[in-house]
Amino acid sequence: MAATTFWTRLAEENAAIRFLDVNLRGAGQVIFQNNPLTGLIFLVAIGWGATQAGAPQILLGAVVALVVATVTAMLLDADAGTLRQGLFGFNGVLVGVAVPTFLEPSGAMWVLLVVGAAVSTVTMLAVANVMKTWGVPALTFPFVLTTWFLMLAAYSFGAVTIDGMGPPALSHSLAAAPPIPVESDAVPLLEAWLKGPAQVFLIDDWLSGVLVVIGLAVASLWAAVFALAGAAVALAVSLALGASLADVTGGLYGFSPVLTAVALGCVFYSPSWRVALYALLGTVFTVIVQAAMDAGMAPLGVPTFTAPFVFVTWLFLLPKADLKPHPHDLIENGIVGKTAGD
Amino acid sequence: MAATTFWTRLAEENAAIRFLDVNLRGAGQVIFQNNPLTGLIFLVAIGWGATQAGAPQILLGAVVALVVATVTAMLLDADAGTLRQGLFGFNGVLVGVAVPTFLEPSGAMWVLLVVGAAVSTVTMLAVANVMKTWGVPALTFPFVLTTWFLMLAAYSFGAVTIDGMGPPALSHSLAAAPPIPVESDAVPLLEAWLKGPAQVFLIDDWLSGVLVVIGLAVASLWAAVFALAGAAVALAVSLALGASLADVTGGLYGFSPVLTAVALGCVFYSPSWRVALYALLGTVFTVIVQAAMDAGMAPLGVPTFTAPFVFVTWLFLLPKADLKPHPHDLIENGIVGKTAGD
Amino acid sequence: MAATTFWTRLAEENAAIRFLDVNLRGAGQVIFQNNPLTGLIFLVAIGWGATQAGAPQILLGAVVALVVATVTAMLLDADAGTLRQGLFGFNGVLVGVAVPTFLEPSGAMWVLLVVGAAVSTVTMLAVANVMKTWGVPALTFPFVLTTWFLMLAAYSFGAVTIDGMGPPALSHSLAAAPPIPVESDAVPLLEAWLKGPAQVFLIDDWLSGVLVVIGLAVASLWAAVFALAGAAVALAVSLALGASLADVTGGLYGFSPVLTAVALGCVFYSPSWRVALYALLGTVFTVIVQAAMDAGMAPLGVPTFTAPFVFVTWLFLLPKADLKPHPHDLIENGIVGKTAGD
Repeated sequence: MAATTFWTRLAEENAAIRFLDVNLRGAGQVIFQNNPLTGLIFLVAIGWGATQAGAPQILLGAVVALVVATVTAMLLDADAGTLRQGLFGFNGVLVGVAVPTFLEPSGAMWVLLVVGAAVSTVTMLAVANVMKTWGVPALTFPFVLTTWFLMLAAYSFGAVTIDGMGPPALSHSLAAAPPIPVESDAVPLLEAWLKGPAQVFLIDDWLSGVLVVIGLAVASLWAAVFALAGAAVALAVSLALGASLADVTGGLYGFSPVLTAVALGCVFYSPSWRVALYALLGTVFTVIVQAAMDAGMAPLGVPTFTAPFVFVTWLFLLPKADLKPHPHDLIENGIVGKTAGD
Repeated sequence: MAATTFWTRLAEENAAIRFLDVNLRGAGQVIFQNNPLTGLIFLVAIGWGATQAGAPQILLGAVVALVVATVTAMLLDADAGTLRQGLFGFNGVLVGVAVPTFLEPSGAMWVLLVVGAAVSTVTMLAVANVMKTWGVPALTFPFVLTTWFLMLAAYSFGAVTIDGMGPPALSHSLAAAPPIPVESDAVPLLEAWLKGPAQVFLIDDWLSGVLVVIGLAVASLWAAVFALAGAAVALAVSLALGASLADVTGGLYGFSPVLTAVALGCVFYSPSWRVALYALLGTVFTVIVQAAMDAGMAPLGVPTFTAPFVFVTWLFLLPKADLKPHPHDLIENGIVGKTAGD
Repeated sequence: MAATTFWTRLAEENAAIRFLDVNLRGAGQVIFQNNPLTGLIFLVAIGWGATQAGAPQILLGAVVALVVATVTAMLLDADAGTLRQGLFGFNGVLVGVAVPTFLEPSGAMWVLLVVGAAVSTVTMLAVANVMKTWGVPALTFPFVLTTWFLMLAAYSFGAVTIDGMGPPALSHSLAAAPPIPVESDAVPLLEAWLKGPAQVFLIDDWLSGVLVVIGLAVASLWAAVFALAGAAVALAVSLALGASLADVTGGLYGFSPVLTAVALGCVFYSPSWRVALYALLGTVFTVIVQAAMDAGMAPLGVPTFTAPFVFVTWLFLLPKADLKPHPHDLIENGIVGKTAGD
């Protein structure tokens, strides 16, 4: 607490520290935390995973893109209060992680990364402006949209080399494949569970996942609880429905549900039993949408990124459902306008 | 009439009858009819088709999903008046018909059906909230969106077996195929015509189509007339343009135009000659969009469902065109805002 | 000037001349010019390119669709002022050029062209109504959406023969292909540069490009400058990133950036250094989006048309960024609403 106060005062007095603070908050906002320490721990989690994977350029990309996205927001005179909370940084971080994860390092790759990071801020402003019409946040859609364009473009540009995604392919039903037995040993499941939070940052490493949860706990215990619960639900549902074991144990069915659970469970609604049930439905449906988009985007050869989280969370926030305890006072608020047939 | 009054009073006095009434209206709202008898006849049409196809689980699915969707709306405290008209049931019915039509029965199939039905209500609230910005209804888009996710997910889940859709394939021009002669016998065309209304419920049976038209006529003669006219226009246009004969005779070019014709012709505009011409253009374009989406979604291996109807009807409702007889008084209403170049 | 005044007076007095004037302005609005002479020169550019390609039906299609789109707007009682500026014509012209460019002449082709032109006006009204919510114009999206439907439908209709697009195919990384040396001779680059403005009208002819630039200069020197600058930036970026040389030299990487540069540089913002930098970022990103959509739409077998321009320009207009010289007065205007985390 004393440390927090000290840092906050330092950031207010010193422009360089303030800039650092804004960027760290930007990293923290990837999972909704307006907290510089959380952001620092998230960057450590990225750095650990990148080093383990022998790809330190991923950490460098994250930092460069974070700074470019923040500076672009400053140059565009974005709202100072919004900027101060790091809300123009989190899409940049994710662009900066994604590009070097799927493209081999080269001059052209860095050009795409920097242009993408700058555009992620423009896209953030655009998407936020559209979505505020219905009182709903942009979430990580600016990252998703911008990076989809960058990754697809890589297929058309000879100057960049794709590594780790695709190739484009038509889906075929998994039912034709022989069933693969789930490991009886509990360890892979524990790792799969912890890789969920790590894969929010496209990191395939369970220790990074532990760091991400710690980063959340530093700012909000509820966020840490819902992140772990979301990853657990995703693990159970994806295994029960027979999803690809490689994807499940790699945490690829976990990262979007983690975000949905945190968003619906404790960020945009206050925790309660009704909210927990609503978040549970949303989390389960996020697993289904992840499976759907994996199949649907296979012909394109690019990852879904966090789109399943974005689409499901939008669907579950747009109703403006009153999730306070019964009895309700909803009629005046009007959940839904008159529709067909009136 | 006397029977209607009796039923209405019964539904007001008895909670169980009211719940039944709401669900029947939900079935009726699939083609815009706030009428429990229409809904009952539609369910009979589904039941007849399902039995003929040897798949009674389709009727069971429809009923289960209808009830789940309605109960979900109650649990979310949806607007009572909207709920009372059955507007949270019709997307559920369609989810419940679609899932057992394209997936083989299994525990996982029923999980997807129940989760999908519950989510269809959340999606209805979300889409209605967005579209009311422009005074336009959600139509069956909540069904379409939810079921696309369910069907695509089936390709990723080993626990469900796909039957009756796909496989994913690249389109190739039909022009390369040898022309297939249209049957000179009138009977297949008559059946194809009547299968249009039946395929609104994914039923490939002309007698079900007759039942659907009767169900409409009970509530609105205009609706029955526009449904038959829409199916006839679709048949003529799809044959003239050389669409796949198997699809045409199966009613697969008819169901969306049926809905477009009813929606534009007598639900959201009042019948008149100008309206009929506008609805005709919309109905013809729905056939083109059906052909387009059949080709465009082939790589995904999932059906278009009623998306052609939804997209075209939105396009034709969004202009808020004044279709009253000339001379017009439109300038004050302002059809279109100032756009490029001003 | 005298000629302009004379023509304007003539158009006010004579209904036939006024109708001609509206249609010519419609052609001019393809690149944002409310100017009948510009429109006439654009039609000459189309005619020249069509003749050179031995496909005069392209000019006929453009004129027919232009008139159909304009007349449809009149029949729908569209806002008189908007109509008078030609804003219901430009999407029609483009539909009329695209259909005979990619489909062989036949009765069915002309049916698709006329229906598509009429629907382009309905779509214009719909899209304009939606986008004005955020103070953003419809741009050429009505053309893009309508024509995507027409082109995809062609794959399902045996009565039309596709020529010059597709076939649908999965993308594969260009990096696997051997590098192709850029011609050292400067002439192909000069031609590639001038084909950018021509390809706005789907014309693969550098002389048509010169005519298009002259047409712009007649109405706005800035527009001509930004068009040429946009084409130059697109040429440099697409070559540097290793795009397909056939596409680059055909102007296929140039037409959307031309439109983005004109739109952001001098139509929706006033020219200045800040605006020029913003337009530069948008123009560079348009090249990336063109590359992305070329890969992403390959499985569909239809062209992107001007979608890269539309999407990027929307993204860059939606923020309502204040691009006046510093110091700014933006906080009151509020670029972006509060988003995640508040």
